[in-house]
Amino acid sequence: MNRVTHLLGIKHPIIQAGMVWCSGWKLASAASNNGILGVIGAGSMYPDVLKLHIQKCKKATQFPFAVNIPLFYPQIEELFEILFEEGVEIVITSGGNPGLYTQRMKNRGIKVMHVIANVKFAKKAQDAGVDAVIAEGFEAGGHNGRDEITTMCLVPSIIKAVKIPVIAAGGIGTGRSMLAAMSLGAEGVQIGSRFAISKESSAHDLFKEYVLSAKDGDTVLTLKELAPVRMLKNEFYSRILKLYQKGTNKEELKELLGRSRIKKGIFEGDLIEGNLEIGQISAIIESIDSVKTIVQEIIMDYESAKLNLFSFHD
Amino acid sequence: MNRVTHLLGIKHPIIQAGMVWCSGWKLASAASNNGILGVIGAGSMYPDVLKLHIQKCKKATQFPFAVNIPLFYPQIEELFEILFEEGVEIVITSGGNPGLYTQRMKNRGIKVMHVIANVKFAKKAQDAGVDAVIAEGFEAGGHNGRDEITTMCLVPSIIKAVKIPVIAAGGIGTGRSMLAAMSLGAEGVQIGSRFAISKESSAHDLFKEYVLSAKDGDTVLTLKELAPVRMLKNEFYSRILKLYQKGTNKEELKELLGRSRIKKGIFEGDLIEGNLEIGQISAIIESIDSVKTIVQEIIMDYESAKLNLFSFHD
Repeated sequence: MNRVTHLLGIKHPIIQAGMVWCSGWKLASAASNNGILGVIGAGSMYPDVLKLHIQKCKKATQFPFAVNIPLFYPQIEELFEILFEEGVEIVITSGGNPGLYTQRMKNRGIKVMHVIANVKFAKKAQDAGVDAVIAEGFEAGGHNGRDEITTMCLVPSIIKAVKIPVIAAGGIGTGRSMLAAMSLGAEGVQIGSRFAISKESSAHDLFKEYVLSAKDGDTVLTLKELAPVRMLKNEFYSRILKLYQKGTNKEELKELLGRSRIKKGIFEGDLIEGNLEIGQISAIIESIDSVKTIVQEIIMDYESAKLNLFSFHD
Repeated sequence: MNRVTHLLGIKHPIIQAGMVWCSGWKLASAASNNGILGVIGAGSMYPDVLKLHIQKCKKATQFPFAVNIPLFYPQIEELFEILFEEGVEIVITSGGNPGLYTQRMKNRGIKVMHVIANVKFAKKAQDAGVDAVIAEGFEAGGHNGRDEITTMCLVPSIIKAVKIPVIAAGGIGTGRSMLAAMSLGAEGVQIGSRFAISKESSAHDLFKEYVLSAKDGDTVLTLKELAPVRMLKNEFYSRILKLYQKGTNKEELKELLGRSRIKKGIFEGDLIEGNLEIGQISAIIESIDSVKTIVQEIIMDYESAKLNLFSFHD
């Protein structure tokens, strides 16, 4: 038990990250049924699709789960209506100003966490009344902060800046890396990439296999002029790179990016034209496992690494 | 005791990073006298200056110390002659091909470590016969790898790839972050920024004070077209940025960089025109301390964080 398990009503202080095209009700309920916090990623869902996923998730688990809402979502009011109607108890917001929505949720008894990538936004989130912040480092997949602060440096900075619990994200995929995050003072971890290619993830098998084959240095943070995202190198990325090499601008990048590239890559398995968002930790993931296996492995790995830690007194 | 303390003949598995204009004989001997490995940074020294520093270091400590040699150093043969003449027992090489010099040193009984930033070079270093690798993440100050892999992701990848001990570098400045690195499986840590502004560092007081005032997001990895370096934002960096914004090339960047900008910044304290190389962890450094205080604090902080680690079994 710690502040995070207590706050969220879960057994283990681990959050399965909400990820577009990966984390629908299937992954979220599997996570919740295995003692961690399952999260439905609303970013890739139309409002009515989200509603369906929440309803299915409620049927598939009796344990707490959350919904992740990117605050730049166009029909965001519709999403909040659905969250309120369906009685969602935990919401994770990201990518926007937490001041705008936090109190509306808190007034209804919803527990709110906000994803941040620097001290300024951590303080803003705390001031807005969120219950915890998720500090996400440069190594994380998908949308990323502009300051390029790594998990190793971000977590200690955030812990010094706020009083609410800090959950570490970015670069965490094993028990050892969870132990590292907890060593830094985090009170929980959010894990994305490892669950993105779990058996219960709705990502395409071809995407999962491609992530498995990724080596160190195979992901890159790019499109910084639009919004920085971390993705695997592929043909689509080569075309981004070519634009940069010739000298480019926002408009050209936007045009190349177009619409639904993430869906194409992650959900439809188009490894050539798709945007294959994933974190740096993909380099050390070795198998496609069930959520149950992943959670068990993380706990065993964590405890055994903890037992064998170097001591200055030995 | 572990493989790193055993290999290097030191009390604690901590290496004070060799840093240009910071780590001469004064810092190195203070480090060695406090149970960790002191390192003279040869990168900023003419051969005869290095010779003098080695001689002074030998007088100032009876404990092992090392010399860091960047393999792109122009008069590198002269440096090796000095190392051999002076009987230096431990050498850290960085920034080049470890295959070229490792065996020559090993043949003379010198212990060799090589700094790497990806799996490919870690394997090359192991094949070349080095005794350990120092895996340096994206968050580190000064020269940096091209793959932008963070310490959190790099260390586990390197541990999977080699059998020799892995020493973690980048983002480590406190006992907690050392604990994080050891959790990832590192058998030692290399600490730069914290020692760069220690009392015994030969850096200018104005540089030390500027680093103290640094907040999260105040460093940036830049000059990637030449060789990526991490530095604090200042007027010099603003001018780099302006070149990038208008569209630039290697030649222009080289011209702006010119010569001795690092000396200007770190040694002469010119905060406007100087290149102020430092790591991301500078954001959480709060005071200018003696090496003795730093080492004691790291050990106490490490052991207390270790005692209080979350357990799944509680």
